[in-house]
Amino acid sequence: MIFVNGVATDSIAATDRGLAYGDGVFRTLRAMRDRPRWWSRHYRKLARDCAALAIPCPSDAALAEEVARAVARSGDEVVKIIVTRGSGPRGYAPPQPPSPTRIIMTTAAPVHPEEFARSGVPVYPCRTRLSFQTLLAGVKHLNRLENVLARAEWDDPAVPEGLMLDEDGNVICGTMTNLFVVERGNLVTPSLARCGVAGVTREIVIETAAAQGVTCRQEPVSQARLLEAQEALLVNSVIGVWQIKMYSGRSWEPGTWSARVREWLDEERS
Amino acid sequence: MIFVNGVATDSIAATDRGLAYGDGVFRTLRAMRDRPRWWSRHYRKLARDCAALAIPCPSDAALAEEVARAVARSGDEVVKIIVTRGSGPRGYAPPQPPSPTRIIMTTAAPVHPEEFARSGVPVYPCRTRLSFQTLLAGVKHLNRLENVLARAEWDDPAVPEGLMLDEDGNVICGTMTNLFVVERGNLVTPSLARCGVAGVTREIVIETAAAQGVTCRQEPVSQARLLEAQEALLVNSVIGVWQIKMYSGRSWEPGTWSARVREWLDEERS
Repeated sequence: MIFVNGVATDSIAATDRGLAYGDGVFRTLRAMRDRPRWWSRHYRKLARDCAALAIPCPSDAALAEEVARAVARSGDEVVKIIVTRGSGPRGYAPPQPPSPTRIIMTTAAPVHPEEFARSGVPVYPCRTRLSFQTLLAGVKHLNRLENVLARAEWDDPAVPEGLMLDEDGNVICGTMTNLFVVERGNLVTPSLARCGVAGVTREIVIETAAAQGVTCRQEPVSQARLLEAQEALLVNSVIGVWQIKMYSGRSWEPGTWSARVREWLDEERS
Repeated sequence: MIFVNGVATDSIAATDRGLAYGDGVFRTLRAMRDRPRWWSRHYRKLARDCAALAIPCPSDAALAEEVARAVARSGDEVVKIIVTRGSGPRGYAPPQPPSPTRIIMTTAAPVHPEEFARSGVPVYPCRTRLSFQTLLAGVKHLNRLENVLARAEWDDPAVPEGLMLDEDGNVICGTMTNLFVVERGNLVTPSLARCGVAGVTREIVIETAAAQGVTCRQEPVSQARLLEAQEALLVNSVIGVWQIKMYSGRSWEPGTWSARVREWLDEERS
């Protein structure tokens, strides 16, 4: 099911700047039995990302209404929301005023082997590096070729994710997930000041940790630091949380943190 | 006039990866009286850029035939060609095999004040920096948010272009043009090993310079070096060549090199 500017259709204008330049942002969230999970957080993040590109964000009410029409009455789906700067004349200069395009697409939620959640996942060490761009760091924009190149490096279905380093060799994130490492009972997640996407699930973990009295620092995470961690977790809005089982020659036994973080996520209502 | 995969239409699939991730490449060229200028060079560059992303490139013959149908029988147009990896299931992993989408759009050539070509153009100093990504450097891919952000920094129609620096502060290119500086009768153009787009017009200038016995080096160009240059030129396939008249407090009198390079471009047939 696809809605473009509120109309059920399967196409967008060929002149849309989302296609021409990746001039837009997106969100991917889960909807279970027609309720989009963590809607208000996802909307707030969408609005912040639009603001980073100076794209007027559609209203919460209008988007929520369209998402409600798009999701199935039953079942478990993934909702993708794209907001672009819309069409305009040829050339990089943004049209003034822009007429943003909003796209809502739903697909069945992916089915992963149960053992991914239970005992963790092997993770591929991607060679594609994330470049530094402070103007775009943290924003989930449509310029995602680095993620595409990284994800194209392996195609083993038993390996559902790969980790990406930045130019300096620090670990930043998975191709589609954020990373947390556990050190002496505390959490650390890579600082995303220069690259990477600051996802909503990451935000929930950071905030819940604080509320639970668990220290969670945002710092550079070197590969050595990750390999010495007690546990390492991958999170996003679709998969929830997976522990890393194997990465770059190190393996981890199932620990206690993925169940703990899953509980945090299950209890989050906003 | 727009053709998508050979069919006249104004829309593309909402699931196209060109929209979702900027997963594709493009070309912008000039067609005068139905002849696309420098076609074989543009096609070769398109094929190289597709190869950089492992996207199968449409054949020269098929694209040339569609471009011929799209361009007007008379007049002066800009032809934009986009090739994306096509549609696929949700997620970064490239579909195997991909079904690329090819898009051809024509618009009337822009009309610029005559004095731009005659006496040069003022150029805006963009604050948006180009990030380093050796895997994508030189490639004209669809991830162009840095160009969009840079072009959004000014909106004075008397200033048709802005110059962009890399992370280290070296001058790389205009938002839509490549740069050449003249030093003691020789040409220098910024090295594009880590960022920037290596355009077809730049390629023609480099090759013609060599054929004419003019030294043309590809090197880092600091701002200081640019400001000390005898002349500075901007080139692309649509505008041809403009001398820089003003940049960052320095002004240049009209020199001899823009006319010389324009002659090189006018004589180029491939």
